[in-house]
Amino acid sequence: MAIEMHDLAGADASLRFSPYCWRTRLALAHKGLAVQTIPWRFTEKDALTFSGQDRVPVIRDGDRVVYDSWSIAEYLEDTYPDRPGLFGGAAGRAHARFINAWADSVVLAAIARLIVRDVLDIVDPKDRGYFRESREARFGMTLEAVQEGRDARVAEFRALLTPARLVLGRQPPGSSARGQAWLGGESPTYADYILFGTLQWPRCASGFEVLAEGDPIAEWRERMLDLFDGMGRRAPRAAAA
Amino acid sequence: MAIEMHDLAGADASLRFSPYCWRTRLALAHKGLAVQTIPWRFTEKDALTFSGQDRVPVIRDGDRVVYDSWSIAEYLEDTYPDRPGLFGGAAGRAHARFINAWADSVVLAAIARLIVRDVLDIVDPKDRGYFRESREARFGMTLEAVQEGRDARVAEFRALLTPARLVLGRQPPGSSARGQAWLGGESPTYADYILFGTLQWPRCASGFEVLAEGDPIAEWRERMLDLFDGMGRRAPRAAAA
Repeated sequence: MAIEMHDLAGADASLRFSPYCWRTRLALAHKGLAVQTIPWRFTEKDALTFSGQDRVPVIRDGDRVVYDSWSIAEYLEDTYPDRPGLFGGAAGRAHARFINAWADSVVLAAIARLIVRDVLDIVDPKDRGYFRESREARFGMTLEAVQEGRDARVAEFRALLTPARLVLGRQPPGSSARGQAWLGGESPTYADYILFGTLQWPRCASGFEVLAEGDPIAEWRERMLDLFDGMGRRAPRAAAA
Repeated sequence: MAIEMHDLAGADASLRFSPYCWRTRLALAHKGLAVQTIPWRFTEKDALTFSGQDRVPVIRDGDRVVYDSWSIAEYLEDTYPDRPGLFGGAAGRAHARFINAWADSVVLAAIARLIVRDVLDIVDPKDRGYFRESREARFGMTLEAVQEGRDARVAEFRALLTPARLVLGRQPPGSSARGQAWLGGESPTYADYILFGTLQWPRCASGFEVLAEGDPIAEWRERMLDLFDGMGRRAPRAAAA
């Protein structure tokens, strides 16, 4: 039986834009596990009661229920050890945890300041009040004020991605190190799904492009979009504003 | 025969404060490899001619010469595979590369803005002109101006360490994840030496404390200072200003 996954959806149920849910979907694909996603909206808290908390992603695998994208990745790795590895061992997992914490605390927070008003346009009508109020309380200002001036601020955002750029980019002349094709090295690992999932949020929820052309991270994202029969590329996107 | 390592030293040759050299010294200790350090000053470029470049760390292991702390760690891992692993496999290595890039591009740059003027006081007299001119050219201002106001700015620096704090700290209530004792998980890996080495720079070169008491990173640093018979703790430190 396929694993069930509650996946954040927009007014258009085909719009799936949660950075955490994207990490989980890629992890499931990496493991070759079939998944049945259940579109879920922010205010459908009751639909998650079975999980003992109120956020997505949540997966149900037979009689096991797991929530939180990091915990789900660990669950999949431990439960399906004979399928392709997400972490490449204990140290790979521990180090990926750092990349997860970086993506959450640095990258997601910065993306929110570029696109959070756009997201309001695609959420389900019944979610709009909740979305605006909860996010405005978090930022202490209107969604419009948070997002304002993003064309001038996007360069700051791109600078925050420097660590990933140094790993994926061409190395400086004289350096004996080589750029990596993937954050995971010679093949993608959960580290790649963390950052890619994070970037699927603006790609699917907003018409605003957060990466610059020619950025090694943009080139890596193209390769990521091709994985699993173009799973990321085929995902519907919000219309450009 | 012990591995030889050129190691940045101050006017007092026992002061060793290069964040990159510290990473290498910890990596050598982790591998259980004997090392003979050779104190080196910034302006002794000629002493490194044998390596084909002009920065430390450089190691000479028999007839092999390797420079750049990341390349040295890879060399040690590949050359001494039967000794304790620094990376825990290919994915662990690839993920550690990200942590290395983060430490270099985010943490080191921020520490410089807190202590670079202090460093001037401990470098060898013959290095002072070179140190001031090269760093002032990089920052576009005097060393005094770079460091000014650090008491008010140190909180910003500490915020930059959030990803490491999330990994090492107690996890939020309701989270099923547990804090890690080490960035490497249940035992230290090169990821730990990267950040610890980076923090040995201010600890040894300046009297200014960059971490707050009670910070999970400060608690982790205490454990790091105890490793290898207190190698990090025993290192001489500059007197507090």
